[in-house]
Amino acid sequence: MSEELAQGPKEGPPAPQPAPREVWKKGGRLLSVLLAVNVLLLACTLISGGAFNKVAVYDTDVFALLTTMMLAAALWILFYLLRTARCPDAVPYRDTHAGPIWLRGGLVLFGICTLVMDVFKTGYYSSFFECQSAIKILHPIIQAVFVIVQTYFLWVSAKDCIHAHLDLTRCGLMFTLTTNLAIWMAAVVDESVHQAHSYGSSHSNASHGRLTLDPERAGSSVGGEPCPCDTAVCQIFQQGYFYLYPFNIEYSLFASTMLYVMWKNVGRLLASSHGHGHTPTRVSLFRETFFAGPILGLMLFVVGLAVFIIYEVQVSGEGGQTQQALVLYYSFNIVCLGLMTVVSLGGSVIYRFDRRAMDHHKNPTRTLDVALLMGAALGQYAISYYSIVAVVVGLPRDLLGGLNLAHALLLIAQHTFQNVFIIESLHRGPPGDEPQATPPKEPCHGLTFANLDALHSLPACPPTPRLVDPHPASPQEAMAIILAPRGHWRRRCLKDISLFLLLCNVILWVMPAFGARPHFSNTVEVDFYGYALWAAIVNICLPFGIFYRMHAVSSLLEVYVLS
Amino acid sequence: MSEELAQGPKEGPPAPQPAPREVWKKGGRLLSVLLAVNVLLLACTLISGGAFNKVAVYDTDVFALLTTMMLAAALWILFYLLRTARCPDAVPYRDTHAGPIWLRGGLVLFGICTLVMDVFKTGYYSSFFECQSAIKILHPIIQAVFVIVQTYFLWVSAKDCIHAHLDLTRCGLMFTLTTNLAIWMAAVVDESVHQAHSYGSSHSNASHGRLTLDPERAGSSVGGEPCPCDTAVCQIFQQGYFYLYPFNIEYSLFASTMLYVMWKNVGRLLASSHGHGHTPTRVSLFRETFFAGPILGLMLFVVGLAVFIIYEVQVSGEGGQTQQALVLYYSFNIVCLGLMTVVSLGGSVIYRFDRRAMDHHKNPTRTLDVALLMGAALGQYAISYYSIVAVVVGLPRDLLGGLNLAHALLLIAQHTFQNVFIIESLHRGPPGDEPQATPPKEPCHGLTFANLDALHSLPACPPTPRLVDPHPASPQEAMAIILAPRGHWRRRCLKDISLFLLLCNVILWVMPAFGARPHFSNTVEVDFYGYALWAAIVNICLPFGIFYRMHAVSSLLEVYVLS
Repeated sequence: MSEELAQGPKEGPPAPQPAPREVWKKGGRLLSVLLAVNVLLLACTLISGGAFNKVAVYDTDVFALLTTMMLAAALWILFYLLRTARCPDAVPYRDTHAGPIWLRGGLVLFGICTLVMDVFKTGYYSSFFECQSAIKILHPIIQAVFVIVQTYFLWVSAKDCIHAHLDLTRCGLMFTLTTNLAIWMAAVVDESVHQAHSYGSSHSNASHGRLTLDPERAGSSVGGEPCPCDTAVCQIFQQGYFYLYPFNIEYSLFASTMLYVMWKNVGRLLASSHGHGHTPTRVSLFRETFFAGPILGLMLFVVGLAVFIIYEVQVSGEGGQTQQALVLYYSFNIVCLGLMTVVSLGGSVIYRFDRRAMDHHKNPTRTLDVALLMGAALGQYAISYYSIVAVVVGLPRDLLGGLNLAHALLLIAQHTFQNVFIIESLHRGPPGDEPQATPPKEPCHGLTFANLDALHSLPACPPTPRLVDPHPASPQEAMAIILAPRGHWRRRCLKDISLFLLLCNVILWVMPAFGARPHFSNTVEVDFYGYALWAAIVNICLPFGIFYRMHAVSSLLEVYVLS
Repeated sequence: MSEELAQGPKEGPPAPQPAPREVWKKGGRLLSVLLAVNVLLLACTLISGGAFNKVAVYDTDVFALLTTMMLAAALWILFYLLRTARCPDAVPYRDTHAGPIWLRGGLVLFGICTLVMDVFKTGYYSSFFECQSAIKILHPIIQAVFVIVQTYFLWVSAKDCIHAHLDLTRCGLMFTLTTNLAIWMAAVVDESVHQAHSYGSSHSNASHGRLTLDPERAGSSVGGEPCPCDTAVCQIFQQGYFYLYPFNIEYSLFASTMLYVMWKNVGRLLASSHGHGHTPTRVSLFRETFFAGPILGLMLFVVGLAVFIIYEVQVSGEGGQTQQALVLYYSFNIVCLGLMTVVSLGGSVIYRFDRRAMDHHKNPTRTLDVALLMGAALGQYAISYYSIVAVVVGLPRDLLGGLNLAHALLLIAQHTFQNVFIIESLHRGPPGDEPQATPPKEPCHGLTFANLDALHSLPACPPTPRLVDPHPASPQEAMAIILAPRGHWRRRCLKDISLFLLLCNVILWVMPAFGARPHFSNTVEVDFYGYALWAAIVNICLPFGIFYRMHAVSSLLEVYVLS
């Protein structure tokens, strides 16, 4: 709580004298949040309006808005980079927790996939250049520029605690964050439209096609449009860019979380003891496991991939194999979710015997991680509760109904226990931080400690001199020798658990992100709620569920490295 | 930041020795939040499912769930009251900011209206006792018991910082909070159904009646049902309880905010200098204004009430007077919102010349207030942006389109500037807290202060003895004499502004809360988005807009008292 300002400046280069403290930080934040909220709502209105058939908002309007926003954000980023390069005093502190290497690495990876997607999109829209408005070709090109500029910016500046032009920087960061969220929304809506289209064409029921389709995409299937996408190259481009959408979605969300942490760090003053290092020992990075977790996880990953491909082939193919595909899909998911629940519970049990102190330090990155894990899980929770009500009230007495119910219940349990495990892990101190395993019967220098935290803040007790000492080593060393195997054993288990959960989350991300929608193949909910309501529920909640998986992966990677 | 724990215990009765500090506060909170989220989602699923025609969830299911929840919450409250009565040590501190008198007064007022509503509801359902399930009559009775128990509980315990059975208390508070939110959701959904019904019957278009109606209510208009509500008493009961719904809604929300603050205060340790008193001087409570604000506000209130009644009569009556009613309604709103915007801006300008220090102390009540003001404004923002897009893209070139656009734009401006004004007011220190108007040229004891906050933490400078002193009074008193009129003038202005805004917010609460829906009388948005989409937008967002008004009223009352 009082870690800011209380202690001296951070180690490293000698900190310059701090700028005069801001009179009212919340006022500056208020301004930028108001800007962000208004821009985001405008974008939200246009994007959601553009998705509906009957509404006279065209997708060119949406593209024009997004392109303008990306241009403005890129210009601001260039201005920021120029300013901080010319005036290094503007960034007196760097937050060691912000922008860890796995987040920045993921950002670069997803950024590269987004660039490939932009190439595909440009190619697709260039295929019928003559009957397109220019903005549709301009949009992916500007997006590519924006992605390159932003990725470089976040790679370089994610840890900055900037102390110059506070209000302008806050507004700029919030505007860039808003741009990323708007891109995310547009991508999610476009994907939902695409899904509704493929569902509508497979069920060929006109009343179900509630979401509109782009004129070009509709043209490709109907054929009567002036701009058909019938060349092989155009088809490849079209297929390609839809398969790359999930990466674009994740890129926007990763960038948003990093920008939010930067925004929280504007004008922050850091102290020295901040987070006690927390740097992993790189030598033993991939050794300290029992190999059971990664091997089991990899097996599930491979099996899951096979199940996903079989499911997609059977559902999209002709013939009544949907039932069979659903049974396969649900069975795999139930096994996978059950194992994950048990393993997460096991991890929590291990923590009950773990004596590492809780880390109470302020850490915007971790606070955001926890909030996102809890918030994003709401999406999957909501879908599961709607499924449960449909199955329990609708009473389908067949195998599929039972599997669906078990699947929904296990999803809730798995999200809950995994969140508990991850959040508890993130709040543990580093491994070397364990207090003595047995309560000290003879407190150092006769002090008694009211709580365990106070113990840590003191320097280690010097060995008490004794007249007759049978042990040549100091008590601390002896304790370390005794404790090492047990601590090691627990740490290995935790590393196994986090790797296993990580791999399972990846496969559970792949399935919905690349188009598995058992929610619609399964007729229970569609019949119970009607297509319109159920599509609204799934299309609003599922993007959060997909984001949850990827965010859990990045958090589990952090847990793996830190435990 | 470091206010907790750092200083000694609060003044008042000698504090008992604090219980051992909780090892990990967030862990306990996590548990209760998980419970609340799951219960709330289940309730949300059933309530929203019950609102749709085609879905086989009956309102008896919803009533049963709510009744069970209210019973459980009431039992927990009784358990809590019993425990704290028997063991006063459990509440070592009380948060002076929590549960201010206007919030508790409002709660009692709305609670009484809710009890009247419960009487009406019981009477209504008893009118056709023979063809009802018992739960429908049981529900309002249990609700009355719950309201009485909860109101007493919040009146007595709203300020408690409890330090016993932490996890159980957190879960209990969260469960009670969830119960209130579920009641709120059920009331909002029921109101929306009622609105859709009256809209459907006035437009007599079958395709528009998307939300279902209670069988009894439908029965009253159709007449072919076995349970008609055709006696005069039954009709009065039915009308009455719908007019009392807004109070029930506000009751649930008031109780929720107070329960949330109690939840945040569980296990909290308080320091002495917390919030420097902030108690208003009760003598001059209703004197220090120029009377311009209250008089203008009262005039607007009365005019607004007249406009509202004319609007309701003209819209619900037969004949083409809807156009005329809408012009009147929009004109009044534009004038009112314009004045409010200007006045809020004026208040913010006054603060630019105000030298009172910002209050940086931790204060869960205020943090929640700010979050709710910003969050609830989103509802009205969203509706406004959808209106703007509809008018700008749909291009209706008539008077009503222009009025609608101006109204939407002014709503955004008014919410923004009012929020800025209120949030800035809430963060100001108390009136006596002004530093010297001119920067001290001769600092006390030769100290120089880096920031103004440090100045406050020091004891007041003793008067420096001088050999030849022309003024008999101490420098401080002289300063007070010089400053008083100017400070007084500003304070009076702020009090006028807050009273004016308060009265305007009350009338802007009355209109939508008691059924004015220009969103549907006006055809621009309905034609542009289609009835289904527009009804979804309005029915989801408007409850937040209505809540915003009442919450702004309570915040402005606080601003009035504190400035």
